[in-house]
Amino acid sequence: MNAAAITVSDRSFRGERPDASGPALKALLEAAGVTVVKTAIVPDEPALIAAVLRQLADEGGCELIVTMGGTGLSPRDTTPEATCQVIDKRLPGMEEAIRQESLKKTPFAMLSRGIVGARGRTLILNFPGSPKAVKECFAVVQPVLSHAVKLLRDEDPYAGVHPASAAHHARSGAAHD
Amino acid sequence: MNAAAITVSDRSFRGERPDASGPALKALLEAAGVTVVKTAIVPDEPALIAAVLRQLADEGGCELIVTMGGTGLSPRDTTPEATCQVIDKRLPGMEEAIRQESLKKTPFAMLSRGIVGARGRTLILNFPGSPKAVKECFAVVQPVLSHAVKLLRDEDPYAGVHPASAAHHARSGAAHD
Amino acid sequence: MNAAAITVSDRSFRGERPDASGPALKALLEAAGVTVVKTAIVPDEPALIAAVLRQLADEGGCELIVTMGGTGLSPRDTTPEATCQVIDKRLPGMEEAIRQESLKKTPFAMLSRGIVGARGRTLILNFPGSPKAVKECFAVVQPVLSHAVKLLRDEDPYAGVHPASAAHHARSGAAHD
Repeated sequence: MNAAAITVSDRSFRGERPDASGPALKALLEAAGVTVVKTAIVPDEPALIAAVLRQLADEGGCELIVTMGGTGLSPRDTTPEATCQVIDKRLPGMEEAIRQESLKKTPFAMLSRGIVGARGRTLILNFPGSPKAVKECFAVVQPVLSHAVKLLRDEDPYAGVHPASAAHHARSGAAHD
Repeated sequence: MNAAAITVSDRSFRGERPDASGPALKALLEAAGVTVVKTAIVPDEPALIAAVLRQLADEGGCELIVTMGGTGLSPRDTTPEATCQVIDKRLPGMEEAIRQESLKKTPFAMLSRGIVGARGRTLILNFPGSPKAVKECFAVVQPVLSHAVKLLRDEDPYAGVHPASAAHHARSGAAHD
Repeated sequence: MNAAAITVSDRSFRGERPDASGPALKALLEAAGVTVVKTAIVPDEPALIAAVLRQLADEGGCELIVTMGGTGLSPRDTTPEATCQVIDKRLPGMEEAIRQESLKKTPFAMLSRGIVGARGRTLILNFPGSPKAVKECFAVVQPVLSHAVKLLRDEDPYAGVHPASAAHHARSGAAHD
């Protein structure tokens, strides 16, 4: 799987604050066997965020794009709005699963506004902008990432899987259509 | 209560795969005292799905429409998008409750994108397309279905209920306005 | 913090039913140190609800607006739709947290359609219209209200906080950007 890790932060873009989230995510993705083909730091400008997402999805060969930052309530936090502009399918269940898990740790999780959706065959995830949040959110979605990307690409997620295991997944409700 | 059970599946529409979800839901609805006035299998064509939903809600005398299938991530999965086109009220709480319960059983539940909403006085539910998922989802919503349909029709959900029971429900927050 | 408490109810507007939710919320807000600068009862007219929200956010000096009522399924329940018209940022996490907590008490919570969002620097919350529901919903959001309002106003939520406490919050994922 090819992925892009995009940090959204005015301060990191201007060099005023080191980007700790991007390297943290890159390490997590690589440990999970994902090839990180692109990392970038973009400022909190919704038109620019949307343009970056469109380019990576349409021409960048990325099956997965994870953004970090810009999901909060400050006036400059516009990553969710930029993401909504570019996706054609929304995955509210992944958004809910991330927040539900985070909410077990802190009530402030309810203020996170991250969107999950697909643009064509590319899955786009909004994570908050801190290494700790990145790690927690990635742990929630990791079990389903490969399956999700295969479905988006219209591939059989069970190709090469031992039949008994595939049947188990099918029974779990994951293989319905 | 009159209901329609609509299976959305290219393969079942073409006769390549038997529709197991439709009969499973029909049996569940009838066991719950609901009259199933219509069953159908439609292909994964969003314009066609939307047209079927509109017709059943506006002229079909259905108080409840349940779709099965097309809620996933494959390119042809467009039931949620078709449903969003036809509803005038969305019920995110029913969507969340279904996914939250499913998530206890499998992390793949977070990939389900089912929508719940109302078109006029008709409640529309998107279930995934497998008999097992249909059974699990129905168990989540069954306790509130009759109440929901009555509210949509502007009927008093407590008519005929013993006053003490109605007061209990009112105290539970269900009868506020 | 300055807040408005707006009851949405045809019957209370016409004087046919006393407004118990408004006074209950006012007492809760004041006990939490919030100044209630405006209370009102408006009928279930979406254009009117939207106009009241816009006026209070844009000219009323309110950092927080809480509506009570109109979140259900009856034909006249349109508070969520009116709220969606006026917000520029949506906070699905607060909506989910409220419903998730309510769902522990009654399955009817899944029928509540309350929206949470921001219009400019004003946070807008839809609560159901019963004193009991108001109390339960307020308990869910109270821990994050002050933080949320400060973020919306681009203030540092940690100003005046002991550094160790701020660092604790930052580690909890609340201070990322």
